[in-house]
Amino acid sequence: MTMTRALIGAALTASLFITPAAAQQAAPLEVPAKSVPVPSDVSPQMKKIIGMPLRTNWDIHPKDGAAWKPVAEAGAETLKKLVPGMMERLHVKVERTTIDGVRAFIVTPERMRPENRDRVLVHVHGGCYVLNPGEAGLPEAIFMSGFGGYKVISVDYRMPPEAVYPAAHDDAMTVWKAVTKTTDPKKTAIFGTSAGGALTLAMVMRAKQEGLPLPAAIAPGTPMSDTTKVGDSFVTNAMLDNVLVSPDGFCDDGAKVYAAGHDLKDPMLSPVYGDFSNFPPTILTTGTRDLLLSNTVRVHRRLREAGVEAYLQGGEGQSHAQYIRDDTAPETKAVFEEIAGFFAKHLAR
Amino acid sequence: MTMTRALIGAALTASLFITPAAAQQAAPLEVPAKSVPVPSDVSPQMKKIIGMPLRTNWDIHPKDGAAWKPVAEAGAETLKKLVPGMMERLHVKVERTTIDGVRAFIVTPERMRPENRDRVLVHVHGGCYVLNPGEAGLPEAIFMSGFGGYKVISVDYRMPPEAVYPAAHDDAMTVWKAVTKTTDPKKTAIFGTSAGGALTLAMVMRAKQEGLPLPAAIAPGTPMSDTTKVGDSFVTNAMLDNVLVSPDGFCDDGAKVYAAGHDLKDPMLSPVYGDFSNFPPTILTTGTRDLLLSNTVRVHRRLREAGVEAYLQGGEGQSHAQYIRDDTAPETKAVFEEIAGFFAKHLAR
Repeated sequence: MTMTRALIGAALTASLFITPAAAQQAAPLEVPAKSVPVPSDVSPQMKKIIGMPLRTNWDIHPKDGAAWKPVAEAGAETLKKLVPGMMERLHVKVERTTIDGVRAFIVTPERMRPENRDRVLVHVHGGCYVLNPGEAGLPEAIFMSGFGGYKVISVDYRMPPEAVYPAAHDDAMTVWKAVTKTTDPKKTAIFGTSAGGALTLAMVMRAKQEGLPLPAAIAPGTPMSDTTKVGDSFVTNAMLDNVLVSPDGFCDDGAKVYAAGHDLKDPMLSPVYGDFSNFPPTILTTGTRDLLLSNTVRVHRRLREAGVEAYLQGGEGQSHAQYIRDDTAPETKAVFEEIAGFFAKHLAR
Repeated sequence: MTMTRALIGAALTASLFITPAAAQQAAPLEVPAKSVPVPSDVSPQMKKIIGMPLRTNWDIHPKDGAAWKPVAEAGAETLKKLVPGMMERLHVKVERTTIDGVRAFIVTPERMRPENRDRVLVHVHGGCYVLNPGEAGLPEAIFMSGFGGYKVISVDYRMPPEAVYPAAHDDAMTVWKAVTKTTDPKKTAIFGTSAGGALTLAMVMRAKQEGLPLPAAIAPGTPMSDTTKVGDSFVTNAMLDNVLVSPDGFCDDGAKVYAAGHDLKDPMLSPVYGDFSNFPPTILTTGTRDLLLSNTVRVHRRLREAGVEAYLQGGEGQSHAQYIRDDTAPETKAVFEEIAGFFAKHLAR
């Protein structure tokens, strides 16, 4: 009996600490099916979001921009209806505008805090580069403006079928150039979630390449930082993340339609492969069930390797971008207050 | 066709953004079985660690300290053999000592950096409160000393069957008191992984309760912060984390044997439920496959809610505590250099 236990102990330890010599063949791990309850240590609002079934029709594959357009429009129609309530609860106003030919919205808190009076945040929305046109891209901008007390310029960039890569990037850069002409870049930040998180990273990389000013800080939320399907949580959180569901679902397909044949490994579309040197301080947000958990963590590490001040936050049980759903969830407020505080620390007044 | 797409779009969006009124019953999510390959974007050394099969005999359940002892001894025998190589590669020396009756090791870099000469780190090893006695608890202390250039005092605390709760906590506090008598607390930190991460948190809570000095910073690695089985990744990463494997496995059982009937929800054994006010700056480490990913993220959030400077880092594809396995893995070096830099920033010279 004692001998058996000793052998078990040795086996336990052998699998705990291994030397290179003891390395084994790396066969795939076969993980059995499991029944996953809603986590208990989250707010009632977040329980509702996390407890939703897998997104309906996550495996649609519209083949081009024309096929995506009605999908995007129908989605936007539903989303737009939520915007007035968000504006009211968070006490912000929204104004539609055009900046050097690019469609945009200006989101302003009803009462601007004195320290934020000269600060401007640029927002690039998410939606796999094909979804959330117009007001549908506004929720995150409204949350940031409302919880953080910042003026936000949200770029309503071109998407398929109107235009493909690099149109969204170009539009974002046009707005960025315009903003930095009228606002001290030290008083600016860029933020966005998912495709907007990738755009945030790509904008800094392009600004570096083009010799443009950089923002004082950025907040890429669960960035779509790798469209080449690399990232462990693409597998480990597949069919668990109820938003993106699978790397073979609608979202990566949408990005491919936008890329329109452009190399997906180009850092403009997969910024994890880009150059992070001289990046401004960066705050990243993800969730423990996020299909892009790995691709958030990987960006965090690349930033740290480049010596950049980079801060990571993660939401218990949250799938992809679930912190930009319900402004009444305390988890949502916490995420945006964290980002707002990070910006307050790094932006000049 | 257009109509169908429009409906799909509406459905997509409805599951993206929900209002409380649209909330659904939160049935468990049924996640199918999956085959999980070793992640590609990690080092060869880390691939070997991540690619190991599930720990042998993860579901053993020794019923008491006497039953655990041979398991712990056999494991320690295997681990001890790795220690000399670690010491040699990382250029540290180890000295066995006793501090006010408590067994401990003093780990010192061969060449002490001038700025670290007066700094002391206290280390509490992991192992579910039943494993890693003696030299088997040293790897993390050696990594910290070697990569960070710090003097480390590693507490070889009592475990079952020698003693049960609060013996390990008491031993750690005895060493803490002794250290703060001879070293300015502003020049100290406490760190540890797993049960050692929980002990690190519990030590700060006890120091606050007892009016003792606090360290200048702490580094709880993937802390066993909740022994009541709460934490979403206990389910989502079960049978995927190849180290802990399951919350119903050996580790939580070991903690229960140490608790010996003491309330597991006591913050001393489940520090996530404790009071985080006035905590020193804290750096937390986890991995994307970590069974304690949620319980690391939850501690991070509690710290931030208490206004504490708290920093989170996560390893791509890593299961529980896999950053303290192989000192030749670049991921290991990165984790310890990150912690060392955090300490360098917060500890007085």
